Amino acid sequence: MTADYRSFYRHRKVMITGGLGFIGSNLARQLVELGADVLLVDSMIPDYGGNFFNIQGIEDRVRVNVADIRQESTMNYLVRNRAVIFNLAGQVSHIDSMRDPYTDLEINCRSQLSILEACRRHNPDVRVVFAGTRQVYGKPDFLPVTERHLVSPTDVNGINKAAGENYHLLYNHVFGIRACSLRLTNVYGPRQLVKHNRQGFIGWFIRTAVEGGEIQIYGDGSQLRDFVYVDDAADAFLRAGASDACNGEAFNVGGQSPISHRELVALLLDLAGAGRVTFVEWPAEKKAIDIGNFYADSSKFNAAVGWEPKVSLREGFERTIAFYREHLARYLNPVPEDLAGIL
Amino acid sequence: MTADYRSFYRHRKVMITGGLGFIGSNLARQLVELGADVLLVDSMIPDYGGNFFNIQGIEDRVRVNVADIRQESTMNYLVRNRAVIFNLAGQVSHIDSMRDPYTDLEINCRSQLSILEACRRHNPDVRVVFAGTRQVYGKPDFLPVTERHLVSPTDVNGINKAAGENYHLLYNHVFGIRACSLRLTNVYGPRQLVKHNRQGFIGWFIRTAVEGGEIQIYGDGSQLRDFVYVDDAADAFLRAGASDACNGEAFNVGGQSPISHRELVALLLDLAGAGRVTFVEWPAEKKAIDIGNFYADSSKFNAAVGWEPKVSLREGFERTIAFYREHLARYLNPVPEDLAGIL
Repeated sequence: MTADYRSFYRHRKVMITGGLGFIGSNLARQLVELGADVLLVDSMIPDYGGNFFNIQGIEDRVRVNVADIRQESTMNYLVRNRAVIFNLAGQVSHIDSMRDPYTDLEINCRSQLSILEACRRHNPDVRVVFAGTRQVYGKPDFLPVTERHLVSPTDVNGINKAAGENYHLLYNHVFGIRACSLRLTNVYGPRQLVKHNRQGFIGWFIRTAVEGGEIQIYGDGSQLRDFVYVDDAADAFLRAGASDACNGEAFNVGGQSPISHRELVALLLDLAGAGRVTFVEWPAEKKAIDIGNFYADSSKFNAAVGWEPKVSLREGFERTIAFYREHLARYLNPVPEDLAGIL
Repeated sequence: MTADYRSFYRHRKVMITGGLGFIGSNLARQLVELGADVLLVDSMIPDYGGNFFNIQGIEDRVRVNVADIRQESTMNYLVRNRAVIFNLAGQVSHIDSMRDPYTDLEINCRSQLSILEACRRHNPDVRVVFAGTRQVYGKPDFLPVTERHLVSPTDVNGINKAAGENYHLLYNHVFGIRACSLRLTNVYGPRQLVKHNRQGFIGWFIRTAVEGGEIQIYGDGSQLRDFVYVDDAADAFLRAGASDACNGEAFNVGGQSPISHRELVALLLDLAGAGRVTFVEWPAEKKAIDIGNFYADSSKFNAAVGWEPKVSLREGFERTIAFYREHLARYLNPVPEDLAGIL
């Protein structure tokens, strides 16, 4: 398994929804190296995370199809003949989901039905790996959180992501579409959206450090989280996509040791050699959906496919800081493909 | 509490979505008796369960507004000044949800957002009681099922009902809209849709017995279920709607002792003095979403508001059989209000 799952992708036809986004594009880079036939589907909705610069250097080795995965006839066409679909498209902002719950419903629920219905009717032999989220658990009853923890989301995005995940497991059980869900914790690394701060704090903290600015921590910064470097997250998708051991199941994909916000920021500022930190009151709309301490137990996924996080926070931060030092402008003002110099 | 919750409704302005349906109309009858100001909202989508005959005899004491709860501006208007909303509108067929998941998503998710957003913006002091379902649990890991059981639905309808429920709990926690969910098991009684068999087996069994026909049991009929007579279910809504003890929580609302399909049908045929039973193979599409034995532990709800089921299966069946003996034609061919003789 450990070696095989990588050779599995040689000449394999795969599709990544959200393929121009943060995790999707990093996954695409690994797949290209493994010799896969890679189709990237992305809606390029502004501010969601799709960015043509994310595929700079591999643009000749992937096919890009701009499309909204809610669009049924398009999905019916695109899913055909794909062996594996990495299903990463989604609206990922908790805050946006509370301001406009209807759009979140469309993007995170309807779109999953259109992909799964397309597979059911036009490619029932496919394997689908869904990008789930630790957010479905809400505020933990116990730590580390296992998959036996109740699903009790604290925001609209978490509720809709839970429904999207459940559709996948259901289509596995009822219609035989092999599907699983990876419940990711806090993923960070190169190619993450850092233009605004509505998609989680980690990208925003890194950008602020690189810019030498002021990082604001809400409250006393004691809350614990675990973090996954994006190459480790991509490795999780590769393993799940090559294995029938995951069919019909949801798995935690969490980081190494949990760390407090306070220590996290201290490490980040130290490595960046720039920036500073202040502690501020929780904004009301964020406090209302905060979950306190969270870190995941990933032993179920480790037992299924042998995955474990390899990249330390120190090493991951170093790589990420170096990336944004060089390319930050590409993320502050993303441009269409013809201006990104890749077409 | 025990006495107070009924007097609470005197002159109280309440709204029932799905108010012309099975549980909604039986609840309306109790509310009218208690002196409430009752607004019934129903989409009258064919085959969903809305039936003007359900309010025969109380038609002068309620106000009916035909509307689709997905329609935002309508809901913005209708929720104003209501003290309690009993939110029972929904698509309730498991089978239909698997054939057309998009419509189920619209009816069971989008519509809940439009009600809750309307309350958030135009009536934040309201109390909302949502009609949840035991279906969110899927196939039980243990019996009786408590609210600590994982939510793991086996059909699209269950997934979407779980999302609809979670929206309610979320709007309670984040926006202060007092809301709770009652996870009903198998509710039966007068005024249930019996025109087709896609809304669960119990109404269909009763109709078949009344018609002297053949009841088909799938498999050996050993699977256990619990049943709630509709007046007991209505009493559960009344108690929850009058109490802040339920805010932000989901509660099981189950029946007395569980009973096997086989014994259930034997009792029904005995009381009806008509009909017969045969045992047939499970149809594939139903077997795929069957959940085996299920019965609920309702002690959490009992502790919160003192509810317990009062009507035995024997007594409930007797009342239900008598009702359909008299009125079956009104349910086989429902007619508009002007033909139902009520306007």
